[in-house]
Amino acid sequence: MASTVQSGISKTAGKPIRCRAAVARKAGEPLVIEEVIVAPPKAHEVRLKIICTSLCHTDITLWKLKEFPGCFPRILGHEAFGVVESVGEDVDHLKEGDSVVPIFLPDCMDCVDCKSKKSNLCSKFPIQSSLLLHRDDTSRFTNADGETLHHYLYISSFSEYTVVDVVNVTKIDPEIPPNRACLLSCGVSTGVGAAWKTANVEPGSTVVIFGLGSVGLAVAEGARLCGATRIIGVGRNSDKFEIGKQFGVTEFVNSKSCGDKPVSQVIIEMTNGGADYCNECVGLGRVVQEAFACCRKGWGKTIVLGVDKPDARLNLNSFEVLQSNKTLMGSFFGGLKPKSDVHTSLKRYLDKELELDKFVTHEVNLEDINKAFDLLIQLKTLRCVIWMEK
Amino acid sequence: MASTVQSGISKTAGKPIRCRAAVARKAGEPLVIEEVIVAPPKAHEVRLKIICTSLCHTDITLWKLKEFPGCFPRILGHEAFGVVESVGEDVDHLKEGDSVVPIFLPDCMDCVDCKSKKSNLCSKFPIQSSLLLHRDDTSRFTNADGETLHHYLYISSFSEYTVVDVVNVTKIDPEIPPNRACLLSCGVSTGVGAAWKTANVEPGSTVVIFGLGSVGLAVAEGARLCGATRIIGVGRNSDKFEIGKQFGVTEFVNSKSCGDKPVSQVIIEMTNGGADYCNECVGLGRVVQEAFACCRKGWGKTIVLGVDKPDARLNLNSFEVLQSNKTLMGSFFGGLKPKSDVHTSLKRYLDKELELDKFVTHEVNLEDINKAFDLLIQLKTLRCVIWMEK
Repeated sequence: MASTVQSGISKTAGKPIRCRAAVARKAGEPLVIEEVIVAPPKAHEVRLKIICTSLCHTDITLWKLKEFPGCFPRILGHEAFGVVESVGEDVDHLKEGDSVVPIFLPDCMDCVDCKSKKSNLCSKFPIQSSLLLHRDDTSRFTNADGETLHHYLYISSFSEYTVVDVVNVTKIDPEIPPNRACLLSCGVSTGVGAAWKTANVEPGSTVVIFGLGSVGLAVAEGARLCGATRIIGVGRNSDKFEIGKQFGVTEFVNSKSCGDKPVSQVIIEMTNGGADYCNECVGLGRVVQEAFACCRKGWGKTIVLGVDKPDARLNLNSFEVLQSNKTLMGSFFGGLKPKSDVHTSLKRYLDKELELDKFVTHEVNLEDINKAFDLLIQLKTLRCVIWMEK
Repeated sequence: MASTVQSGISKTAGKPIRCRAAVARKAGEPLVIEEVIVAPPKAHEVRLKIICTSLCHTDITLWKLKEFPGCFPRILGHEAFGVVESVGEDVDHLKEGDSVVPIFLPDCMDCVDCKSKKSNLCSKFPIQSSLLLHRDDTSRFTNADGETLHHYLYISSFSEYTVVDVVNVTKIDPEIPPNRACLLSCGVSTGVGAAWKTANVEPGSTVVIFGLGSVGLAVAEGARLCGATRIIGVGRNSDKFEIGKQFGVTEFVNSKSCGDKPVSQVIIEMTNGGADYCNECVGLGRVVQEAFACCRKGWGKTIVLGVDKPDARLNLNSFEVLQSNKTLMGSFFGGLKPKSDVHTSLKRYLDKELELDKFVTHEVNLEDINKAFDLLIQLKTLRCVIWMEK
């Protein structure tokens, strides 16, 4: 793979590249495959040849959004595997031909947060709410009509080439298959990390997961790796249990079949007092409250992974928080450090510990990207990998 | 001390004891010193001769409360030092003459919680909302008129004698002065434990404390013991800073003098991004929100110690919880195990590490107990010790 790319480097480095991209032109309307012009990387940037990209719910959310931070025309996509095509000035740790995973969460490896073991939120390059442009507030995408196309989550991987800041690029072992490596860019890392880093699940413990989409199933995978004994999935569709079993889910509670009982009561009864860890992977404040309620008094941890609306509120009983000695934790990107921890995760994949294959349920080519959107909207896929070339 | 008590044992064991108690007869009205009759201990109970007791805000709260769980006539008081006068059946670990601290939080030393290092919430004897009676739903207090007097928080230490369940009694080293030992029954343990056990404050870190009453100052003492470098007090009265300095508070923010800025903004600026640990010792949901807001992104912990109204709600922005990777923790009784951890705390006092002396600002005799109430209501005392005998 790398050699193919390397052979092209000398021809394209320093020049704009014309290539295909799937452009989101209007909220909720099918992406359009168009020719775009990708500028060469500026200082501390690299231009990547995207080999494959996978579709995440966040892409769908922003694609549907008419209002800011929805923005059009735009190149979406943020889970990907690529090869460095060329590098800008002041790029030290990456070179042409390197296999990489772009990650929306910056890791400058230099600030107090990036140097700390406790944080994965870079303070030198905090995530901006717009996520439309690069560090210098400009875009690297135009087209033949002179139109500027917006970036997305610092990545924009629905394009054969894209330009990414070095703080958003993790170099990886080229042995790792592209359609496995790309999974670590966002959703799967978030779930696995929530169990491994944020909750630090203890062997023998009980883990509850609200929502068995890719993130929830990745929590199950992380919990399995940590040695959890019981992994209880909660959802509104019992078919999810069959899928969940492949990820180590041992029991399933259908929230629509609990009758008058709140789900928390059912879980408390099943676990004789509450679960050790409860994960919210749905993105609803009221589900966080339910997760908090079914955590074990004395030591239970509730981990928030789901993305709710920007103004959504979490409402907890103050005295219950005090008197229960429970913990509520946010888990953005699973608490993983985008460079070191993702590297560790991929090593665990090569060592046949972390199972990534089962997340990939569909694969399509770029021209069929709208099929990937349909499949995810209909919840018929976990991760659909989109290959840029056949 | 112990010998005085032991000499009386043979005379009173197995018989009712007539003694003085301060009885709360009506909500908010001065306590009345009356003669009460204290029944002998039943199975798994001990009768204590109370040597001294200290006044805590919870006593004031329940004394003022007209509605349930307010209840009259009642013997309040739950921070105390006593000596075992006699024991009931099935009492293995305590004997007449033992020096003890009664603690409202049960510790049976036998259930999964009491055996676990992670929990301090006994599941065999969970705290009941009423807290009026003993395990068998009866009271040990009557008077010559045949009137039954209610218990309080399983302790009722505003009496020369009281009967307490063994799960609520911690045996201590008789070398520890009574007017220091009693402090560990509730407020001081809660604050010290919140820093030591719940937050597990790291050396060199920054700790913010909302509310510099006894509990908040005990957090400062705990944070000092853990090696915190900056301890920032927040309150509405700058006089508190002078007191706070004695407890290791290094800076003070007067919330009334912040102008248009929220306190959280002031703290974020002072700490270049937020504090490592923020403790809410006021008991107001909106202060918890402010504490959460001024915690450091990436690793900040907000610890809830203050007791709000039973129906008060905590309202947090759901996306902020997710995206900040912050933690919210309840700290009931500071996460301390009532037997083992209180024992450790008292050993640290004897070793001159934990400083308890400075918490005791006033001492009175039983007949002056209403003066202690006045002092605490007017916030003129931290801990006022009430001696049962001159």
